[in-house]
Amino acid sequence: MNFLACFVLICFFTVPLVEGRVRHYKWEAKYEFKSPDCYKKLAITVNGKTPGPSIVAQQGDTIIVELKNSLLTENVAIHWHGIRQIGTPWFDGTEGVTQCPILPGDTFVYKFIVDRPGTYLYHAHYGMQREAGLYGSIRVSLPEGESEPFSYDYDRSIILTDWYHASTYEQVAGLSSIPFVWVGEPQSILIQGKGRFNCSTPGIQAGLCNATNPECTPYSLTVIHQKTYRLRIGSLTVLSALSFEIEGHNMTVVEADGHYVEPFVVKNLFIYSGETYSILITADQDPSRNYWASAKIVSRNSNTTNGLAIFNYYPNHPRRYPPTVPPPGPRWNDTEPRLAQSIAIKSRQGYIHPPPQTSDREIVMLNTQNRINGNVRWSINNVSHNLPYTPYLIALKYNLTHAFDPSPPPDGYDFANYDIYSVAKNVNATTSTGIYRNKLNTTVDIILQNANTIIPNNSETHPWHLHGHDFWVLGYGKGKFDITKDPKNYNLVNPIMKNTVPVHPYGWTALRFRADNPGVWAFHCHIESHFFTGMGVIFEEGIEKLGSLPKSIMGCGDT
Amino acid sequence: MNFLACFVLICFFTVPLVEGRVRHYKWEAKYEFKSPDCYKKLAITVNGKTPGPSIVAQQGDTIIVELKNSLLTENVAIHWHGIRQIGTPWFDGTEGVTQCPILPGDTFVYKFIVDRPGTYLYHAHYGMQREAGLYGSIRVSLPEGESEPFSYDYDRSIILTDWYHASTYEQVAGLSSIPFVWVGEPQSILIQGKGRFNCSTPGIQAGLCNATNPECTPYSLTVIHQKTYRLRIGSLTVLSALSFEIEGHNMTVVEADGHYVEPFVVKNLFIYSGETYSILITADQDPSRNYWASAKIVSRNSNTTNGLAIFNYYPNHPRRYPPTVPPPGPRWNDTEPRLAQSIAIKSRQGYIHPPPQTSDREIVMLNTQNRINGNVRWSINNVSHNLPYTPYLIALKYNLTHAFDPSPPPDGYDFANYDIYSVAKNVNATTSTGIYRNKLNTTVDIILQNANTIIPNNSETHPWHLHGHDFWVLGYGKGKFDITKDPKNYNLVNPIMKNTVPVHPYGWTALRFRADNPGVWAFHCHIESHFFTGMGVIFEEGIEKLGSLPKSIMGCGDT
Repeated sequence: MNFLACFVLICFFTVPLVEGRVRHYKWEAKYEFKSPDCYKKLAITVNGKTPGPSIVAQQGDTIIVELKNSLLTENVAIHWHGIRQIGTPWFDGTEGVTQCPILPGDTFVYKFIVDRPGTYLYHAHYGMQREAGLYGSIRVSLPEGESEPFSYDYDRSIILTDWYHASTYEQVAGLSSIPFVWVGEPQSILIQGKGRFNCSTPGIQAGLCNATNPECTPYSLTVIHQKTYRLRIGSLTVLSALSFEIEGHNMTVVEADGHYVEPFVVKNLFIYSGETYSILITADQDPSRNYWASAKIVSRNSNTTNGLAIFNYYPNHPRRYPPTVPPPGPRWNDTEPRLAQSIAIKSRQGYIHPPPQTSDREIVMLNTQNRINGNVRWSINNVSHNLPYTPYLIALKYNLTHAFDPSPPPDGYDFANYDIYSVAKNVNATTSTGIYRNKLNTTVDIILQNANTIIPNNSETHPWHLHGHDFWVLGYGKGKFDITKDPKNYNLVNPIMKNTVPVHPYGWTALRFRADNPGVWAFHCHIESHFFTGMGVIFEEGIEKLGSLPKSIMGCGDT
Repeated sequence: MNFLACFVLICFFTVPLVEGRVRHYKWEAKYEFKSPDCYKKLAITVNGKTPGPSIVAQQGDTIIVELKNSLLTENVAIHWHGIRQIGTPWFDGTEGVTQCPILPGDTFVYKFIVDRPGTYLYHAHYGMQREAGLYGSIRVSLPEGESEPFSYDYDRSIILTDWYHASTYEQVAGLSSIPFVWVGEPQSILIQGKGRFNCSTPGIQAGLCNATNPECTPYSLTVIHQKTYRLRIGSLTVLSALSFEIEGHNMTVVEADGHYVEPFVVKNLFIYSGETYSILITADQDPSRNYWASAKIVSRNSNTTNGLAIFNYYPNHPRRYPPTVPPPGPRWNDTEPRLAQSIAIKSRQGYIHPPPQTSDREIVMLNTQNRINGNVRWSINNVSHNLPYTPYLIALKYNLTHAFDPSPPPDGYDFANYDIYSVAKNVNATTSTGIYRNKLNTTVDIILQNANTIIPNNSETHPWHLHGHDFWVLGYGKGKFDITKDPKNYNLVNPIMKNTVPVHPYGWTALRFRADNPGVWAFHCHIESHFFTGMGVIFEEGIEKLGSLPKSIMGCGDT
């Protein structure tokens, strides 16, 4: 009893206050029929839900997730998006990079520290399972006694996604087959897991769509008049760039990917897959009615209906439709306001992490769409990335040569002769499993260079996400990046730090990061089908600093 | 050069004649869109085909199948159905019993000897993947110079299956969910991978069904007038018992599951999932036209259209429809002719393997349908079997206790008080991973006792398949097996040996086998959803005689 009392005391005084609490979650991933947009399909749920349970923690807490795979014949892995995994690179959850997939029946224990406050996400990182519904939110608050540089009355989280009726398997079969079958536009946009597909659409199989299913009741965010809400918005779309707005209400952007933003006001927030934002919104409009929250696809000419939710002023009924037509949202092909928002996001005064003023290495990454052996693929500097079956982390640590291509991908492309405004003369590319290796504690610049796709007069938006690090966003530009002139205009004063950033059509985005986190890290376009068809690279740094790897991440390929 | 010449000579003279040839196959399992019955769905193919490539070998040959798993996120395992795997129990291909599942990207090498001539099958044995299309045929011929006790001009193989439009995942989700969702009747019957679904069926999603797709052209078996054909027929139905016939032609049954049958003539052949038969058929009818081959569902009141193929008399066009209405087939609920056929199958004179006249152990297995925690399950003696995630073979060999339930399932049921003709008073049952352990080289009798399901006045047909052994079929009976009287009527003179046998509605089937093959072996109902919901048991014998297990079968559960 004395021992027990002592243990309790230790837990209470030592662990919570000094080292952070331990937050223990028991999760089960499973296939279940769900109708998030009224159309019944199999989804991967966590504990019966999609989105899955939220992780709510405090800075410095240790998160333990015991994940049981109950998918029967399919493996799984979960990535903790935005968590840098300092000291735990093996728990990043990226199949093929940091771990073997988790087998059916197995329980894998993820254990990591949430070392920064902010808004983060989690999602499957294996095949294209994310789009099957395995995702959720992570909210990390400041330690007791510390406060944010802005005030609000309530804190709420929502995740935006797009939703397909075809299964992951069907989509993958199309993307891998000859002729190539593109996944197409999503069937609906989900706001916090709720959307609405038109069940009267011709050609729908009988019995699958039910407009009165309570599962597809629009998400309703209840607010009290004159109160201010911190709304944490994350996007985990499969494909779509979105514009999010709440009818008649301005939004003040205060956080991006866990970093404080010098506040600015927008009517609509552009958000790309993998990004998170906190906005402040005051319920300062006529409280006798509800208002539409709307998510519209931009950057693609999509026929998908806007996603709708209800911004509900208490005590109006939360499901009472607003009396107005939902806002139409911005034009899909107007790049200017999107670029303007990207540029507007700066680090907040007093919370600036100054970037290194110079870098040790500069990699220019030309983003192109290509044809390889009859398939459509995406490439970086004409190399389309394939994931190996032996995770890089294990292969590098234990010198499992042959696990991947030893030659690194190129640091640039034919700057002088490549016309980013035209379809490439030669749309072929090669595939590789090769990686970029960086010296530990060096500074690396990445310039993402967009270009024309294989369709004339078309360039897409790609949201790039870096694992294991936040990077500084040094600048955005239009056209071809000039390696001599453009770096002179880099923002080295108050650049925002992020983990996901868009490269706009025909434009470039410049990033800088410190290669200071020993491990192996993916950097990829967060569009599910783009990463699947080659749009990613791998960075390694300081592998020699790592102790022995947990056995639980092994069991596949050469391991 | 001398060494090479010597090696070639050894191969030529020693291996082929004395030890059998090595037959080396390289297979890739993959998801691809197929329209075997005109309806497009994802199927698991082997080298692009479903049914997959046939294995054609000679008695004593060594089969090597290098199976590459290209299913992206899903594992796989293939069972060699009817091959006893003497000395290679680890290559039986039964996930959870003899091996861990094969991970995506991995290549697993199966290596085994086909030690008996005859007609066998292969199929996935993991989750419910068999029904996704991963199956094919194995034909083992006699050694050169030996001949069968019957003659024919040509040798042909066909496999019968039933086919669902819902994915394996959708079916499994229904079977595992509360409320329980039954998979229902199949959408079509496939003869050698070809069937025909009515694309005009109301409620079908637009664009998925195309009646003019050449993939669903009926299978056509071309024959020459007055020639005799050995037709090897296997059934790998998911659910259905079938009656197969060729309009206007008698069939002489000569082989069952690799054993010669005392010939008998039938108009239609009843065949259950997991069985194979060779029939002789002479093309002795009017050669100016084609004839229908037809497969009809029996034992269930199914609305599934009969499967049709064309028995094509050369030189008529192979796709020319016969001028007649296809034969309707027997009544679905007439058990008598099915029982009569079962009883008619005896071992051929001169080829009888005499059974042991007594047995060392007798296990009566009551087959019941039950409810467990709100789900519908199947049980043996009120125990519904669950597969563990650590394969039994590995757990037993390396004493991995906790891998499965240590208590064995019961050897019988409450004979005196159980009414097999009624729904059980208590339909509950328990689940277990426990197994039956037999002493090596003992003789075991199994009596499969059928009963009423949870629906009044309903008893189904269950085809039971034993891995690693052939058993003698000692008898069939109606009603409740009498442990005192019925064994006196066992056929101990010329019982057929088989690996799969039906137990008819409200009837019993008695088997005897020698527990002489060290390893761990599944014995289960071959209906995919029945095994999945508990209708199986596991036998172990002589595990102590096995040397070390191949590493390739490990990597899951506690291994």
